[in-house]
Amino acid sequence: MPPPSPPHTPPRPPVPPAPTTGPRLRTAPQGEDRERLVCPDCNYIAYENPKIVVGAVVTDATGRFLLCRRAIEPRRGFWTLPAGYMELGETTEQGAAREAWEEATARIAIDALLAVYNIPRISQVQMIYRASLSDPAIAPGTESLEVGMFAWGDIPWDELAFPSVSWALHEWRDRAGLTGFAPGTNPPPPVEGL
Amino acid sequence: MPPPSPPHTPPRPPVPPAPTTGPRLRTAPQGEDRERLVCPDCNYIAYENPKIVVGAVVTDATGRFLLCRRAIEPRRGFWTLPAGYMELGETTEQGAAREAWEEATARIAIDALLAVYNIPRISQVQMIYRASLSDPAIAPGTESLEVGMFAWGDIPWDELAFPSVSWALHEWRDRAGLTGFAPGTNPPPPVEGL
Repeated sequence: MPPPSPPHTPPRPPVPPAPTTGPRLRTAPQGEDRERLVCPDCNYIAYENPKIVVGAVVTDATGRFLLCRRAIEPRRGFWTLPAGYMELGETTEQGAAREAWEEATARIAIDALLAVYNIPRISQVQMIYRASLSDPAIAPGTESLEVGMFAWGDIPWDELAFPSVSWALHEWRDRAGLTGFAPGTNPPPPVEGL
Repeated sequence: MPPPSPPHTPPRPPVPPAPTTGPRLRTAPQGEDRERLVCPDCNYIAYENPKIVVGAVVTDATGRFLLCRRAIEPRRGFWTLPAGYMELGETTEQGAAREAWEEATARIAIDALLAVYNIPRISQVQMIYRASLSDPAIAPGTESLEVGMFAWGDIPWDELAFPSVSWALHEWRDRAGLTGFAPGTNPPPPVEGL
């Protein structure tokens, strides 16, 4: 019996040329034990910390799910939940609502924290909320080619942008009708080689 | 009846002189609608995003709570939960366990997400986990003057470093013995002026 195919690894994007200005050297600054990214021209230390992505699984009165088709890389053309990096000075819920507005001109009411996904490979923490659509009027923002409301059976599973989109949708389904629940976390990685 | 005293506002730290090198101008870069912090010498954009603080309410077999007395500002000398900024390449749980080790040489087993606190004023999102102490041996790390295990009745409530320490301890008490619960969030702000 032939071994199973390896999981699909998307092609790596081209590596940009090494920068010649700005923070570009990795070294331990005076008084620190960790290496940091520094600028050798002015000694600026570009502290790097994981980034928070906030988003929401938004349903309407008939239980359909809001999805946005990405206009920008990565995964342009694929469908995703409204989500994006948190900005300074906002709460996680405000960020999730802002992204729904920016990406789909969707007004949403946030209900609960649905999931916390760690993607340490790219130093991201994703916080996905459960929300309902307050106003049926939606339209693509600048980062979306199109947006739409999808019944569960119509979700384009083969055209989702990232694994966490599917995780979060299933998280919603598993908690439908419940309140006071613990948020979901990363599913176990697939077992390979068996 | 005299009006209530205003809430205590700690004195502001001195304002450092304006930088003359590195990212120091706030302006909207080409193609962006938001202002960003940029370096006029090399056009480097210092994207700023909220930072995640990870920490834990750690209890031992007798139900005592791990607290650390801070050796560094802010609030040096005051008691806090083991917590700190997430580093690149780790998960939130790994970060919380790392901080417990660094600040109190405490080995912990994480059980559940206890609370998510938004502090937008300083662009922080705090994720506090519930954990148990795996090994009774604890000792202060470089960022702690001392560490100790405190029964609820012995917690130095008047000497806690930050409001969220008290919030998280009470969150633990409110969920003691429960599983599968929703994490706590910021309590409502105190009502002033009544």
